[in-house]
Amino acid sequence: MKYEIKKGKKMKIGFIGFGNVSSTLASILKKEGHEIYTSSTNRSKKTKELINKIGAISLKDFNEVSKISEVVISANSPSKAIPIAKKYGKLSKNIFIDLNNISPDSTLEISNELGDKFLKGAIIGKINLNENFIFISGKNAEKISILRNSKLKIKILSESVSDASIIKTLRSIYTKGVSALLIETFKIAKEMNLEEELFETLELTEGELFKVKSLSRINNSILYSKRKYDELKDILEYLNKFNDLNEEKTDLILLKATLKAFKSIQD
Amino acid sequence: MKYEIKKGKKMKIGFIGFGNVSSTLASILKKEGHEIYTSSTNRSKKTKELINKIGAISLKDFNEVSKISEVVISANSPSKAIPIAKKYGKLSKNIFIDLNNISPDSTLEISNELGDKFLKGAIIGKINLNENFIFISGKNAEKISILRNSKLKIKILSESVSDASIIKTLRSIYTKGVSALLIETFKIAKEMNLEEELFETLELTEGELFKVKSLSRINNSILYSKRKYDELKDILEYLNKFNDLNEEKTDLILLKATLKAFKSIQD
Repeated sequence: MKYEIKKGKKMKIGFIGFGNVSSTLASILKKEGHEIYTSSTNRSKKTKELINKIGAISLKDFNEVSKISEVVISANSPSKAIPIAKKYGKLSKNIFIDLNNISPDSTLEISNELGDKFLKGAIIGKINLNENFIFISGKNAEKISILRNSKLKIKILSESVSDASIIKTLRSIYTKGVSALLIETFKIAKEMNLEEELFETLELTEGELFKVKSLSRINNSILYSKRKYDELKDILEYLNKFNDLNEEKTDLILLKATLKAFKSIQD
Repeated sequence: MKYEIKKGKKMKIGFIGFGNVSSTLASILKKEGHEIYTSSTNRSKKTKELINKIGAISLKDFNEVSKISEVVISANSPSKAIPIAKKYGKLSKNIFIDLNNISPDSTLEISNELGDKFLKGAIIGKINLNENFIFISGKNAEKISILRNSKLKIKILSESVSDASIIKTLRSIYTKGVSALLIETFKIAKEMNLEEELFETLELTEGELFKVKSLSRINNSILYSKRKYDELKDILEYLNKFNDLNEEKTDLILLKATLKAFKSIQD
């Protein structure tokens, strides 16, 4: 996979909201010389301080941010993604990118409203100041390739706008399935007093960081089991529809079991 | 995990059968100076040549091998493990090791017959000439620690003879579950024409060899789906019994789904 780093012109980049994802990306893009816009109106003292620290320009409201920016980025929460995209995407004359964890269906809904200026982005893994992988799909995806740098590895997936959400969905099926499997297997191992030995055993074939990674997955899954259960329910619904439309049906045996496992963790 | 390499006396080691596992171990142990015994009576021309090549001593039959050896090793097939252990284990005056992929119940059955001279061994991963991990459990497990060398990493698990089979069982739940999950996820990805992109995406967080490892798991699972299904059925039966005896029950949601998936691959 090539994450080519193109040096290009400096852009005006607007953020709707300024949470963890937005502020991390803004900080990286600011250091590359881009102009960062957002709005601190009605935001917490902490957010205002963060905006100042990063050196972002705070405008009166997000309407202004959307109008002035060449690229508008929405990184908020899945539940707010659609209304934000419809409102601020319409005000944007250029590119509007949604980075929220939304379903392929929601992506298409936004795309129907905004047309070719809409790009879907999917952040792969955790966001941090050192290295981020963002997958982008949409007709005009190439236009944001100039935002690429050593800390922001942007992969243009395809012109089909929903592909970034589909990739994220498929990734989710695998990673959540592994988490459910780890929880079940290590629960049995613990009852048999062979938890440590099993970690050691699996580390031999699964890689040196297996234990650290697995414990992080287990803890994360238990902590956010409600949210993960909801995400899995959406995924199952989407794939059931996909199956209905396709001749070749895929048994969703493991996905259904993962959903059931997350339900049982939650209870 | 320490795989201490102890230099010790040279031992007489007998192999019941001389297939892939036996011949690989024999070759490694011969190079360390141990005396290797087996029997080529009624064996194929290929096996006879292999015995000669390695420099193992061929006796009249396995009865002789069992009587003369200080350590008798059975690496055959799960279905022959119990009768072989009962027959040749009884003839052995010293240590008898079963290396077959058998259930904790079968391990206990052999142990009841042979007592403390019986050790259970579990090979973790694939056997090869360069590096092998063998977990051993049983009262006298320490006695074979002198067989350790740089190519044969022996971990003494515990004095509880069934622990090596339990570890292998738990490992199996995880690895077969991952395989079933990979097959299901990549089937959907393929239908969506995003198979390659999904491999690339997962490689970012799951490690560089993810694609190679996953393809090998998928192919292996499809090729040996019947055998894997049978193994999973045994595991489920064993854990159901374990659950019945324990106050704390574990939902076997993912295990049951993995079994169902392997059934569907088979059909």
